[in-house]
Amino acid sequence: MDTRTILRKVKDGSLSIEEAELAFGRQPYEELGYAKLDENRKVRQGFPEVIYCSNKPDDYLVSIYCKMFEENGEVFGTRASIHQYEIVKKKLSQVQYDEVSKILKIEKTDKKLTGRIAVCSAGTADIPVAEEAAQTAEFFGTYVDRIYDVGVSGLHRLLSKMEVIQKANCVVAVAGMEGALASVLGGLVKNPVIAVPTSVGYGASMGGLSALLTMINSCANGVTVVNIDNGFGAGYVATQINRLAGGK
Amino acid sequence: MDTRTILRKVKDGSLSIEEAELAFGRQPYEELGYAKLDENRKVRQGFPEVIYCSNKPDDYLVSIYCKMFEENGEVFGTRASIHQYEIVKKKLSQVQYDEVSKILKIEKTDKKLTGRIAVCSAGTADIPVAEEAAQTAEFFGTYVDRIYDVGVSGLHRLLSKMEVIQKANCVVAVAGMEGALASVLGGLVKNPVIAVPTSVGYGASMGGLSALLTMINSCANGVTVVNIDNGFGAGYVATQINRLAGGK
Amino acid sequence: MDTRTILRKVKDGSLSIEEAELAFGRQPYEELGYAKLDENRKVRQGFPEVIYCSNKPDDYLVSIYCKMFEENGEVFGTRASIHQYEIVKKKLSQVQYDEVSKILKIEKTDKKLTGRIAVCSAGTADIPVAEEAAQTAEFFGTYVDRIYDVGVSGLHRLLSKMEVIQKANCVVAVAGMEGALASVLGGLVKNPVIAVPTSVGYGASMGGLSALLTMINSCANGVTVVNIDNGFGAGYVATQINRLAGGK
Amino acid sequence: MDTRTILRKVKDGSLSIEEAELAFGRQPYEELGYAKLDENRKVRQGFPEVIYCSNKPDDYLVSIYCKMFEENGEVFGTRASIHQYEIVKKKLSQVQYDEVSKILKIEKTDKKLTGRIAVCSAGTADIPVAEEAAQTAEFFGTYVDRIYDVGVSGLHRLLSKMEVIQKANCVVAVAGMEGALASVLGGLVKNPVIAVPTSVGYGASMGGLSALLTMINSCANGVTVVNIDNGFGAGYVATQINRLAGGK
Amino acid sequence: MDTRTILRKVKDGSLSIEEAELAFGRQPYEELGYAKLDENRKVRQGFPEVIYCSNKPDDYLVSIYCKMFEENGEVFGTRASIHQYEIVKKKLSQVQYDEVSKILKIEKTDKKLTGRIAVCSAGTADIPVAEEAAQTAEFFGTYVDRIYDVGVSGLHRLLSKMEVIQKANCVVAVAGMEGALASVLGGLVKNPVIAVPTSVGYGASMGGLSALLTMINSCANGVTVVNIDNGFGAGYVATQINRLAGGK
Amino acid sequence: MDTRTILRKVKDGSLSIEEAELAFGRQPYEELGYAKLDENRKVRQGFPEVIYCSNKPDDYLVSIYCKMFEENGEVFGTRASIHQYEIVKKKLSQVQYDEVSKILKIEKTDKKLTGRIAVCSAGTADIPVAEEAAQTAEFFGTYVDRIYDVGVSGLHRLLSKMEVIQKANCVVAVAGMEGALASVLGGLVKNPVIAVPTSVGYGASMGGLSALLTMINSCANGVTVVNIDNGFGAGYVATQINRLAGGK
Amino acid sequence: MDTRTILRKVKDGSLSIEEAELAFGRQPYEELGYAKLDENRKVRQGFPEVIYCSNKPDDYLVSIYCKMFEENGEVFGTRASIHQYEIVKKKLSQVQYDEVSKILKIEKTDKKLTGRIAVCSAGTADIPVAEEAAQTAEFFGTYVDRIYDVGVSGLHRLLSKMEVIQKANCVVAVAGMEGALASVLGGLVKNPVIAVPTSVGYGASMGGLSALLTMINSCANGVTVVNIDNGFGAGYVATQINRLAGGK
Amino acid sequence: MDTRTILRKVKDGSLSIEEAELAFGRQPYEELGYAKLDENRKVRQGFPEVIYCSNKPDDYLVSIYCKMFEENGEVFGTRASIHQYEIVKKKLSQVQYDEVSKILKIEKTDKKLTGRIAVCSAGTADIPVAEEAAQTAEFFGTYVDRIYDVGVSGLHRLLSKMEVIQKANCVVAVAGMEGALASVLGGLVKNPVIAVPTSVGYGASMGGLSALLTMINSCANGVTVVNIDNGFGAGYVATQINRLAGGK
Repeated sequence: MDTRTILRKVKDGSLSIEEAELAFGRQPYEELGYAKLDENRKVRQGFPEVIYCSNKPDDYLVSIYCKMFEENGEVFGTRASIHQYEIVKKKLSQVQYDEVSKILKIEKTDKKLTGRIAVCSAGTADIPVAEEAAQTAEFFGTYVDRIYDVGVSGLHRLLSKMEVIQKANCVVAVAGMEGALASVLGGLVKNPVIAVPTSVGYGASMGGLSALLTMINSCANGVTVVNIDNGFGAGYVATQINRLAGGK
Repeated sequence: MDTRTILRKVKDGSLSIEEAELAFGRQPYEELGYAKLDENRKVRQGFPEVIYCSNKPDDYLVSIYCKMFEENGEVFGTRASIHQYEIVKKKLSQVQYDEVSKILKIEKTDKKLTGRIAVCSAGTADIPVAEEAAQTAEFFGTYVDRIYDVGVSGLHRLLSKMEVIQKANCVVAVAGMEGALASVLGGLVKNPVIAVPTSVGYGASMGGLSALLTMINSCANGVTVVNIDNGFGAGYVATQINRLAGGK
Repeated sequence: MDTRTILRKVKDGSLSIEEAELAFGRQPYEELGYAKLDENRKVRQGFPEVIYCSNKPDDYLVSIYCKMFEENGEVFGTRASIHQYEIVKKKLSQVQYDEVSKILKIEKTDKKLTGRIAVCSAGTADIPVAEEAAQTAEFFGTYVDRIYDVGVSGLHRLLSKMEVIQKANCVVAVAGMEGALASVLGGLVKNPVIAVPTSVGYGASMGGLSALLTMINSCANGVTVVNIDNGFGAGYVATQINRLAGGK
Repeated sequence: MDTRTILRKVKDGSLSIEEAELAFGRQPYEELGYAKLDENRKVRQGFPEVIYCSNKPDDYLVSIYCKMFEENGEVFGTRASIHQYEIVKKKLSQVQYDEVSKILKIEKTDKKLTGRIAVCSAGTADIPVAEEAAQTAEFFGTYVDRIYDVGVSGLHRLLSKMEVIQKANCVVAVAGMEGALASVLGGLVKNPVIAVPTSVGYGASMGGLSALLTMINSCANGVTVVNIDNGFGAGYVATQINRLAGGK
Repeated sequence: MDTRTILRKVKDGSLSIEEAELAFGRQPYEELGYAKLDENRKVRQGFPEVIYCSNKPDDYLVSIYCKMFEENGEVFGTRASIHQYEIVKKKLSQVQYDEVSKILKIEKTDKKLTGRIAVCSAGTADIPVAEEAAQTAEFFGTYVDRIYDVGVSGLHRLLSKMEVIQKANCVVAVAGMEGALASVLGGLVKNPVIAVPTSVGYGASMGGLSALLTMINSCANGVTVVNIDNGFGAGYVATQINRLAGGK
Repeated sequence: MDTRTILRKVKDGSLSIEEAELAFGRQPYEELGYAKLDENRKVRQGFPEVIYCSNKPDDYLVSIYCKMFEENGEVFGTRASIHQYEIVKKKLSQVQYDEVSKILKIEKTDKKLTGRIAVCSAGTADIPVAEEAAQTAEFFGTYVDRIYDVGVSGLHRLLSKMEVIQKANCVVAVAGMEGALASVLGGLVKNPVIAVPTSVGYGASMGGLSALLTMINSCANGVTVVNIDNGFGAGYVATQINRLAGGK
Repeated sequence: MDTRTILRKVKDGSLSIEEAELAFGRQPYEELGYAKLDENRKVRQGFPEVIYCSNKPDDYLVSIYCKMFEENGEVFGTRASIHQYEIVKKKLSQVQYDEVSKILKIEKTDKKLTGRIAVCSAGTADIPVAEEAAQTAEFFGTYVDRIYDVGVSGLHRLLSKMEVIQKANCVVAVAGMEGALASVLGGLVKNPVIAVPTSVGYGASMGGLSALLTMINSCANGVTVVNIDNGFGAGYVATQINRLAGGK
Repeated sequence: MDTRTILRKVKDGSLSIEEAELAFGRQPYEELGYAKLDENRKVRQGFPEVIYCSNKPDDYLVSIYCKMFEENGEVFGTRASIHQYEIVKKKLSQVQYDEVSKILKIEKTDKKLTGRIAVCSAGTADIPVAEEAAQTAEFFGTYVDRIYDVGVSGLHRLLSKMEVIQKANCVVAVAGMEGALASVLGGLVKNPVIAVPTSVGYGASMGGLSALLTMINSCANGVTVVNIDNGFGAGYVATQINRLAGGK
């Protein structure tokens, strides 16, 4: 419905004012002053809002955490510190914290995981980012295969796992240093590869910029890239794609 | 089947040597000396190989073009010059060239386009890249909605088109200069947004690097990025995603 | 008026559908396919749309040019080539072209210039950018003082002109190479300084990036920066500020 | 008056030597050895000098702080630490410190705020920089509307606040990560937008450089940029502009 | 043997399934979940795997360390901390730690060093990287001459040592700051020079990037470059080259 | 012999002045004013000097070319233009020019090629750089296997050629775009890999810098890097290594 | 004399108004509108103004050229094109043009060259920049020794010339590629070395930025740096230093 | 004397072997293994070696410090920590440490300072670098005028000090942030300006790189640049220049 149609329907009474508001995309949010909680996101995008915990002041974090839990019965926070885990735990004792992925969550039980994505990491040091991707996807209902330490310097390790990787609706390729894993995977699978450069490396890796450039310049088709260490972003997109595949 | 299983089956005769070769991923290709045509790509990835025409010597290009046409009955080349169009035309008179997108192709008729993706451009100057994306997706069988000149400096133009954009299985966001279109779109749709930075701009746009950085740092979920001006790459991934959505 | 109020008024008939559309910011534009002319910009921002001519295909440019002239009785284009001047001239013989600033315009006569801004250039080579700024401001009705070749390596030239510069509601500082002019001006005037780095220079000037960095790091208060060579942008903001000053 | 005129008047006695000194711009300052206090700045620029506290040695800071308080009856310091607050408090017990903005000030009471500017932040994490801008403007006598957490990934939050934003004489747009807020605002208001990139982000945000590049390349008119995290600079320019608007 | 040949031999029994697996490059590795130990590397590359200790979690490190020791009777770890030394020592008391090079190793006694390479450092501050190179080469059986503090600003020091340097099968040139040592050495010897930029320096050295660029742009023939501070990499390549020279 | 020893022998007559000069490394060169021909390089480094033709003025080039031919009976020039070929040909009709590699040479016939190196290119567009490497090595007497178009996006092409690559004393890996070929090769061979980034690519490839960074950050052992497009440098080092291997 | 003293003297008649103007540093210049000729520079800095010809419009250039010739009886222009030579020649037939250095000058005859500086170039391709430096110094009266093609890859060439270089009051070191010449010279002489990076090189030389970084990071004392290809700047400073040395 | 002449003289006895060694530039140094003390530097360059203390291990530092004191009766160390002061003090109780400049020295008393240089700093925060420059120059016997806090944002402070600055044989300009001070000074004095960028600033100052670029691109003649925060280097060159001026 375009604006004119909506207005006409309001005028002739075939649409209520509340329905018209929604149709206009004037979506509700909760004003906290320091933040505006996007309550309508689940409707608009299919997933509730997620909390990026890093550097949030303690009282802001706890308050946002509680509000979201109230509304959705579960909450998902990324890049949380142990300290943040402890202060949230005081209010919501059921909260869980994973030290590797830094994910702080309350999750509904009996969640059914559907479809299939693969999360691959080049090295052991890339696992924290890979886990952020994998656990994000799982929180949103996606089944995940983890394939870790399959960097290109020992290709036989990766090749021995291709069978499971090729079954995925989407492959997340997590790699630091020179980040070549994404290109190699891009040439071996038929579904999209989401490349996540990591800040693992030293010297000319420049905090992950080199791996990012490698991945953006990939000669393989089907590779797209997210920000350095952005496991969450990759897990989110992988879930979107998996959802489109109908959970198969 | 893992290596051991294949070998056992070869040994006991339940698998022919040719079948085993394929199972090992020892895929066939045609050796031209200066190039190795990846004839098995359609099997492995679901799409035949595409020709990146830019800077290919004349005789290499014509020869590769003819071989691919022979094999698939159609060919798709990107970043072709008018000169290249003319030399290919001498051999294959049915070849078609689009000056905007620089695509040089022979396409089977009666191709059915399924599913739905949206290709959005921020400005008029971004249209060549947007067209590369759109025509790539169409060549691979995807239905495309084009929404051009909807940059964020006149937001009402974009908002007036959201209804059609929100129906897409995947949105391609093409923008130069500051590249903000991708983030705005990311917040408004529920399916993946493939962001394509373009080299449109001047001064501190640094040939598209600024737009690339904007897109990689996007605060919106669901945004992934390809190389500057890589319309082909975006159209390819959008097609992969649309295919997963089952052509709906 | 918020959404609910508008809807209520539409429902009870105290607002027409057309009035409601405008109130919603669903602003009109003209769809050309390759472009969407933002006809409402004059209402929204106080100035009509301007044409960035660089690289616009000939037929697009002429067509946009004619449409805008029809609508506003005048047109302002930046970064035009002589060739573009010639093709527009065939349709609109009154069009004027300035080779220094590359501005292509049809301007209403008897325009009254009000207020006062100063456009300063560090060197002779920066004049094209300075003129783009000055002529932009003049087109939008601002009185401009030009002070050229007052770079900091011969400070007495600048100091001898401070009296006129200090009268300006806004100072545009155009400089390439090391771009120090903006900081020196920032310390000498009480109104805002808009700094425009230019691509004048060589070697480590990196096409103007060095001057941009100098200006962004300015130790003087009141200095803000636009893109390299963006004389238009500086002239536009200077006009906004001059307008706020009530044309005094 | 030019040099010759001043000299003639001194010669013929119609100008005193003290008046002539001021006319020459030989402005007074107080020499501290390690610093030269610019006592004449209020005359020259309309605002007294402000203290950039970061890394100032303790005794320098306290001494400068006391001298400025003596002279103006109020003092404004930015980027102060709690430690600096404590040492200044020992000498000047009335000093106030805000932990969010890191502003350390003694402010005259009954200050009347005039005009109207808007300070917008993209996210909650950008609030410290936004507050530095807002409180700077308020110290210099400007009325400020704060609109926080209106980043472009949830556009409805920003659009719901446009009415108040459009009333501002100047809009300060504070954003990290991809910094797209400035461009979106630039297209929606008619007065100048001062864009402040922040160092909020990770990976390819490169400490705010990406947001800075986004803003400098803005496709919207009326956007100028200050240094990363430079809330003070933005508040200062916004005040200059608001003052030109005559406090309306 | 190509795939077809191997398959034929398996079919006719002239090759066992185990032999065929190796022939296919399906090399064995040990799966630890968080890591895949590349046990076949000694066969494939002539040297066993080495442990990059930096940031490895304690339990991963100890477990990998023990497994490798079991398999090879010696282990070589780089970039180890004192803490890591202490935790490994609890399990393997014979482990040795060098605070300068940060190498943590158990080495077989009575190792015979053959051939000859030279490791040169520009300054005293570059010695940790030089030692990583030298001790790596020694662990793999190479005889090493150390020539330290021979930077180009005092050329006579370097020239006085040329006799021994010119005898080396490979020269490792370790330098920070401007990194000119590699070019000077490249012009004076006839065998390959492996250049190692170090992060020694300040200001525009940008953590070693300047030295890296110097070395990559070397006007001397025979110079190749490894990553900043990558002493291990240089020692490894020098050993490969020395091995090719037949230990002479 | 150290300085003192040489001087003593001169004093006592057991060393002639000419022999002493050589012992001091005071090597002869021919002074041309605009150039100093390094006639002693063959003695010092084992290979005669090579001419970098790019941008050499015509008369300088011809004169240097003739002098070197006189001295060595053969000459090797890189990065020559067709124009340079034509002007040299007028003086030395036997000169040969290869348009792909831009090599301009006069070569002794009946040269025996010994040892074995492999030159691999990722794509067809990288062949000019690969050929510069290969022909350089051949000119200096090295036997070369060429393996072209084996980029990582179609891994089976590379794997099918590993048998010949693994026989090489040194592998040259030539790749543009994301440059991942070097890392993959580094993990598969036991001898050194010389990585040559090329300027092939677009957008964020930044003229080869991205490929250079990829290669410098390689996670594989045994990889060292030369400048972008520096095929000559790679061929030279490969020859040095092949020579050390004794031509086997 | 400070301001107060001058004013008192004017008041009591012991200083004329013209003398007071000069004392205030209100220096004369000639206003051309597009340029302000700094006629007083010879008094202030000891050398007349020089013309940077690059990109100056024809009529501006000729007019400035003539005015300067009138005033000083000689003129010195840098970075001139042949076209500029031809148009100036029409007005001033005695003008001389050097195609290597791009210097366009009219010079007084019988100029006496005093003191001694050395201009060294690393390669033949650096000579244009070296000549700009040398001829600038000569124009301003300095005696120059030229030592070309003494790059560090053949150190014996440089060492054979040290005797003459060590006599210079100032050494100009001109080098592209890795720019190591400056550091080596800095360690061998006792007077200042002015390093000039050149844009000679390819790939990672980034138009001279790499050489600039090398020189800025020099480990040798006494090295300062000017912009890439800035031969004029180096010749100017060398002349300043030579002048201070009293022409010895 | 060239090599041949020296050798002839040795042969005929007119030159001793020791004299010949010196003539050959085979200069003595003291070998410490981890360092080579350049005892001949005073002869070669006119100043003894200086110790760069930063990161030197304790025992190396103390040992080098003592050796140099023995040899010269005074020592000069830069970038020393308080800890280093304390450990050196245990051995050499007369050592002096300045916390601002981080200089650790033992200086001969009754040193006569000759000539005159000026060290200017833009802000109070730049004083540590300025002091490193000033105290270096004083240690080597130069008279220094300090002019601090004269940044370009309050130009009258600088202009009021020009009389003393213009008397200097060399001016050191120390500035962070945008670094414009060097250009302004370059236009006002006739002797060389040594520009020292500092790491003072934030955001886009990038640790001093922006100021470095500003200074390298200076439009003023006579400006050369040293590394970021390299006060020592500037003081050293200023001393070289002052020495050439004959201490006047």
